[in-house]
Amino acid sequence: MQSIGVGLIGTGYMGKCHALAWNGVKPVFGEGPKPRLVHLAEVSAGLAARRAEEFGFERSTGDWRALVADPEVEVVSITTPNAFHAEMAIAALEAGKHVWCEKPMAVTLTDAERMAAAARNSGRITALGYNYIQNPVIRHIGKLLEEGAIGEVNHVRFEMDEDFMADPEALFYWKSEASSGYGALDDFGVHPLSLVLVLFGGVARVMARLAKPYAERPMRDGGRRAVETWDIASVLFELRSGVSGVMALNRSAWGRKGRIALQIFGSKGTISYDQERMNEFQLYASGDRATEQGFRTVLAAPAHPPYDRFIPAPGHGLGFNELKIIECHEFCNAIAGRPARIIGFAEGLEIERSVHAMAQSHREDQWISV
Amino acid sequence: MQSIGVGLIGTGYMGKCHALAWNGVKPVFGEGPKPRLVHLAEVSAGLAARRAEEFGFERSTGDWRALVADPEVEVVSITTPNAFHAEMAIAALEAGKHVWCEKPMAVTLTDAERMAAAARNSGRITALGYNYIQNPVIRHIGKLLEEGAIGEVNHVRFEMDEDFMADPEALFYWKSEASSGYGALDDFGVHPLSLVLVLFGGVARVMARLAKPYAERPMRDGGRRAVETWDIASVLFELRSGVSGVMALNRSAWGRKGRIALQIFGSKGTISYDQERMNEFQLYASGDRATEQGFRTVLAAPAHPPYDRFIPAPGHGLGFNELKIIECHEFCNAIAGRPARIIGFAEGLEIERSVHAMAQSHREDQWISV
Amino acid sequence: MQSIGVGLIGTGYMGKCHALAWNGVKPVFGEGPKPRLVHLAEVSAGLAARRAEEFGFERSTGDWRALVADPEVEVVSITTPNAFHAEMAIAALEAGKHVWCEKPMAVTLTDAERMAAAARNSGRITALGYNYIQNPVIRHIGKLLEEGAIGEVNHVRFEMDEDFMADPEALFYWKSEASSGYGALDDFGVHPLSLVLVLFGGVARVMARLAKPYAERPMRDGGRRAVETWDIASVLFELRSGVSGVMALNRSAWGRKGRIALQIFGSKGTISYDQERMNEFQLYASGDRATEQGFRTVLAAPAHPPYDRFIPAPGHGLGFNELKIIECHEFCNAIAGRPARIIGFAEGLEIERSVHAMAQSHREDQWISV
Amino acid sequence: MQSIGVGLIGTGYMGKCHALAWNGVKPVFGEGPKPRLVHLAEVSAGLAARRAEEFGFERSTGDWRALVADPEVEVVSITTPNAFHAEMAIAALEAGKHVWCEKPMAVTLTDAERMAAAARNSGRITALGYNYIQNPVIRHIGKLLEEGAIGEVNHVRFEMDEDFMADPEALFYWKSEASSGYGALDDFGVHPLSLVLVLFGGVARVMARLAKPYAERPMRDGGRRAVETWDIASVLFELRSGVSGVMALNRSAWGRKGRIALQIFGSKGTISYDQERMNEFQLYASGDRATEQGFRTVLAAPAHPPYDRFIPAPGHGLGFNELKIIECHEFCNAIAGRPARIIGFAEGLEIERSVHAMAQSHREDQWISV
Repeated sequence: MQSIGVGLIGTGYMGKCHALAWNGVKPVFGEGPKPRLVHLAEVSAGLAARRAEEFGFERSTGDWRALVADPEVEVVSITTPNAFHAEMAIAALEAGKHVWCEKPMAVTLTDAERMAAAARNSGRITALGYNYIQNPVIRHIGKLLEEGAIGEVNHVRFEMDEDFMADPEALFYWKSEASSGYGALDDFGVHPLSLVLVLFGGVARVMARLAKPYAERPMRDGGRRAVETWDIASVLFELRSGVSGVMALNRSAWGRKGRIALQIFGSKGTISYDQERMNEFQLYASGDRATEQGFRTVLAAPAHPPYDRFIPAPGHGLGFNELKIIECHEFCNAIAGRPARIIGFAEGLEIERSVHAMAQSHREDQWISV
Repeated sequence: MQSIGVGLIGTGYMGKCHALAWNGVKPVFGEGPKPRLVHLAEVSAGLAARRAEEFGFERSTGDWRALVADPEVEVVSITTPNAFHAEMAIAALEAGKHVWCEKPMAVTLTDAERMAAAARNSGRITALGYNYIQNPVIRHIGKLLEEGAIGEVNHVRFEMDEDFMADPEALFYWKSEASSGYGALDDFGVHPLSLVLVLFGGVARVMARLAKPYAERPMRDGGRRAVETWDIASVLFELRSGVSGVMALNRSAWGRKGRIALQIFGSKGTISYDQERMNEFQLYASGDRATEQGFRTVLAAPAHPPYDRFIPAPGHGLGFNELKIIECHEFCNAIAGRPARIIGFAEGLEIERSVHAMAQSHREDQWISV
Repeated sequence: MQSIGVGLIGTGYMGKCHALAWNGVKPVFGEGPKPRLVHLAEVSAGLAARRAEEFGFERSTGDWRALVADPEVEVVSITTPNAFHAEMAIAALEAGKHVWCEKPMAVTLTDAERMAAAARNSGRITALGYNYIQNPVIRHIGKLLEEGAIGEVNHVRFEMDEDFMADPEALFYWKSEASSGYGALDDFGVHPLSLVLVLFGGVARVMARLAKPYAERPMRDGGRRAVETWDIASVLFELRSGVSGVMALNRSAWGRKGRIALQIFGSKGTISYDQERMNEFQLYASGDRATEQGFRTVLAAPAHPPYDRFIPAPGHGLGFNELKIIECHEFCNAIAGRPARIIGFAEGLEIERSVHAMAQSHREDQWISV
Repeated sequence: MQSIGVGLIGTGYMGKCHALAWNGVKPVFGEGPKPRLVHLAEVSAGLAARRAEEFGFERSTGDWRALVADPEVEVVSITTPNAFHAEMAIAALEAGKHVWCEKPMAVTLTDAERMAAAARNSGRITALGYNYIQNPVIRHIGKLLEEGAIGEVNHVRFEMDEDFMADPEALFYWKSEASSGYGALDDFGVHPLSLVLVLFGGVARVMARLAKPYAERPMRDGGRRAVETWDIASVLFELRSGVSGVMALNRSAWGRKGRIALQIFGSKGTISYDQERMNEFQLYASGDRATEQGFRTVLAAPAHPPYDRFIPAPGHGLGFNELKIIECHEFCNAIAGRPARIIGFAEGLEIERSVHAMAQSHREDQWISV
């Protein structure tokens, strides 16, 4: 395969990330098919044309169905609002395209199930945009766990915090509405769950407690409206291995900007990581000499592939957007039938099920098996 | 009151801390009664005599009851193993002494209740050795919360981790036996709970999950024995105010040496703290200018009393043992009828109740009200 | 100008960076001319063809002079070894091309002077690859200095350290030879000097001391050879404003991977920064309340342009390579006659003069004016 | 020797530290003579009496010569302003007392030389209050250097920064007067130099540049007065071994509260340390596996003696004042004829000579040999 025809639906931030990934994947990796940027769809033909020129697509449309029908399009990047994922992904799969869809899969579990079924039936490759798993540092942490570098894992903690909902006087908007989902659980929880999935293989049982920091928020036109979603979630869980875990999520956490913090405890050591410093991790190895034991701050380096495809020197740092280039490369690997580190619709459905189990646990105030 | 007669029972690490505190409190604070180190008790007369010479006590005994009966002893420091606290404290109270007893109060809830009753009946001052609450940094965090510096608190997280039980091949010893208590819950949990108490006023409801990293441990004489305590505890809780919280405890956490980490989220900011860097805290204030917002690393300073009684310059740092000098001073304040920051037997009983509620929650797999 | 014809000479790491920048600049910024990747030159026609396919160039050549002569090439990216910069840059300028050349300008001061003269005579735009100055965090630090956020600057410190020469048993190679230059001074010193230039406007006087950690190194074929360059440099300097500074450089500093550390002291505050955590800086503002003063860890955010062109959320992080996209955009701005943040050959010559003054200072053991 | 008679002159902050040390040394170390707190001198009899009561001294005086003449006083702690050190120390030595004197030795080099001569002639033990060298972490760093843990040292950097002179509108006071000395050089420089002495054995050659951040300061009674001392010093130096070093000192460094930062580079690793986090150090060992190399944050622990005399658990932290207890213990060791880690008047004189050489270097703008 010398080239691959790409269609892109949606050009918000994630659309731009996909465009950058499709532009960068060949120069960075120097291997695999050359992406041919064929078709771009937006809500209006005008916007679509402008973005196509910026992003380097050959043609554009205000009707995403035209893109899906385009025979030169072999893969479709879907980066539209969550509510549209199911319809577009299923249509693309039915049209025989491979689908790279932003997370979360869908707002409802039913839609997610429909997407997973469509993927299974199509035989096409699907990938969800869980880009944190692509960080070379996270990949290396997984390798350390496999090698037993910290022995047998016996306890884990995950936190995810940002502050875009922290201001109590910020206006009521769609993320405060029940129609958007549960709140922190689905908005954030899917990210740590994607890491749980690749590092530990999934969650068996959950006990969650949701909380609203602010009962109501001001409306744009005056007055106040009751907030329907939970910005805070506190969760106990058990991995399939029986290992106990804690997960805390907060999208009203002043000062946290992109924190996804892991602590992994094992019989021979401990690993910790914080996405706000995504180019490093901390390792404590019990085998070090007693007088010089301590957490090592390990900087991302060429020894942590595929960092080496970007930079030949250690400690220089990848960016958040560059994780998408790695994700794109993995997606292409999967299409080419090579081993690939992606979360497809089948695995994504597991993440969705965990999220919905957490919500059920909160409603019923008891442990729920996933 | 010009001087106060002190008796000390026990001279292990905590006994040494009390001795250092009684020696240091007057030079540091320059006020209050002058401690007169009257009587020291240990398990043998010989050890007692040696320690009395080292610690500067006038006389010594191998029989703690002689110390309790000594009319020149006005306050008794109890630093013996937990199992002896109840008997000694009750005897001392009944003899009309003020009692400064190391934490936790007792191994059983019944003993703790008896101690609280004895304190109430005696009319004497009691103080438990929860010295983390005495850190000027923690005291200042409390002041910030009272002032509303981070607005209304809406979520909290507590972690306490050490690694003295982390080695899976470490021998089975008394902390692995059920007779020592539950494990991390009482060994560690009381510390974060003491902070919850002074900062937020106590816990209303708990949901806990305990875990054993190692099912069995080697015996000194060969063979292996099943571990009876839980080194790991994961807890969801609600403050009396309804605010949600997470608590994670692990005494087999490789690399953590004295970690007690707090994260306090409010409507105007966030505070975090880690006991391993006990001379600093982190504050994020939402009122800072958008382009320069960030967590401030605030170093302990004379502006955070009673740091100023130790050092007139900021950033020079107090030590763990010095917190005990502050605790001693607060205890003396209470005896003198002045306002004091101590956790007496009545408040200590609340902490014990929370711990036992957590254990019950684990057994019954459900939320328990405290 | 709708498009701009690009030629690229050299496809090592920096060549790849330029290619990624030319591919990414339009999707990221959405404005400016669309780069047309016309011509790529490498040492052999075969390698050139392969890279052209990877990087998306239309045609390729094993003869860089053919590229320079190509009328469709309007700008030339030069990323070859330093010794070739002068010849290629001068040829390109004389052919009427704009030139984007990697740093340092040249090995000798004479060559750098010839390049600056050629640039001046040509009237074309030149830019050197000092990409650290493009970091939105560095740009914001400059803005803070201009605004007087830390008052009047009265002392500065710069450090640059890596460890690629730290192993005493690493083989003698070209960086150990005098023909490569002085060592840390030119290999590293130009980077902090580029920051001095954009933040403070240049150096007036220097006093340097060079050092060799290892007198000799093993040869590939056996035996050992005396090292001719200095891996360590210690420098006192004065800014043109008279402010005193310290600069320490070490390319044999075990554990430092990409450290460029700044400390800037002013009458109202202090700023510090470390390139190994390039998405944050530290600010101490004396105006904060006494009890809550501390260094704030400010994370890169959309409020620090052009971070916002990459990511709409704070704290998500840019990568080292992405600074090159910003640099490319600035270069295009300059070509379009818009204000641009670039270090052209004229300013670059100042940096070279500072480096050579430092070397002279070491030789003569005295202060040298630049 | 069962007890030792102590006299204390001066009861400011350092006097309090000495008093705490004399009170705490026996309980902490459990060995050595029991200090008998005999005599305390202050500027007035009233203040002396009050402090004697607080600090636990038997008698007091408003005339320090009476204390020096007291036959029951065997050692004299001198904690008065620097200008009095020489007279008091010499008198005490001539009276046959051992002398523990706060740093710096004296304001003038002549006085320091007289003190060193008096010490030599007396045959008594002298110790200067360089307590940073007593930090178990610093002691352990010294041990690592001796063991060759980071190989052969090839470059060092020292920084010392505080901000008590940072406010440009702070009043002119005695530290701004030439009679107080040079400024940062002697006020601060002696501390890093004490570390250089114990870790590396002294300085051979210096090149210094002094700076004044503020040319003048307001007077209490109105008007402004030219500042006569230099708050900032930038220094290049060479150790006796020929190793190059950089030292930067700033007592007007906003936000730095007690920073003394070391970076020690060797052929096998790097060590760094910051006094603001005095209970930890950073070690990079080149022998670690490539993919997990990083600076280890090693927390102070019982494995770093004499931390173990204070606390049996790692990571709990010593305080600044507690270093004085260790210093006191070392002083007692020296008196008892045991090996001791102290800087006596002879070694202290070397430090003074280095400081004065730096001042001369600044005046003459050239390198000065010490």
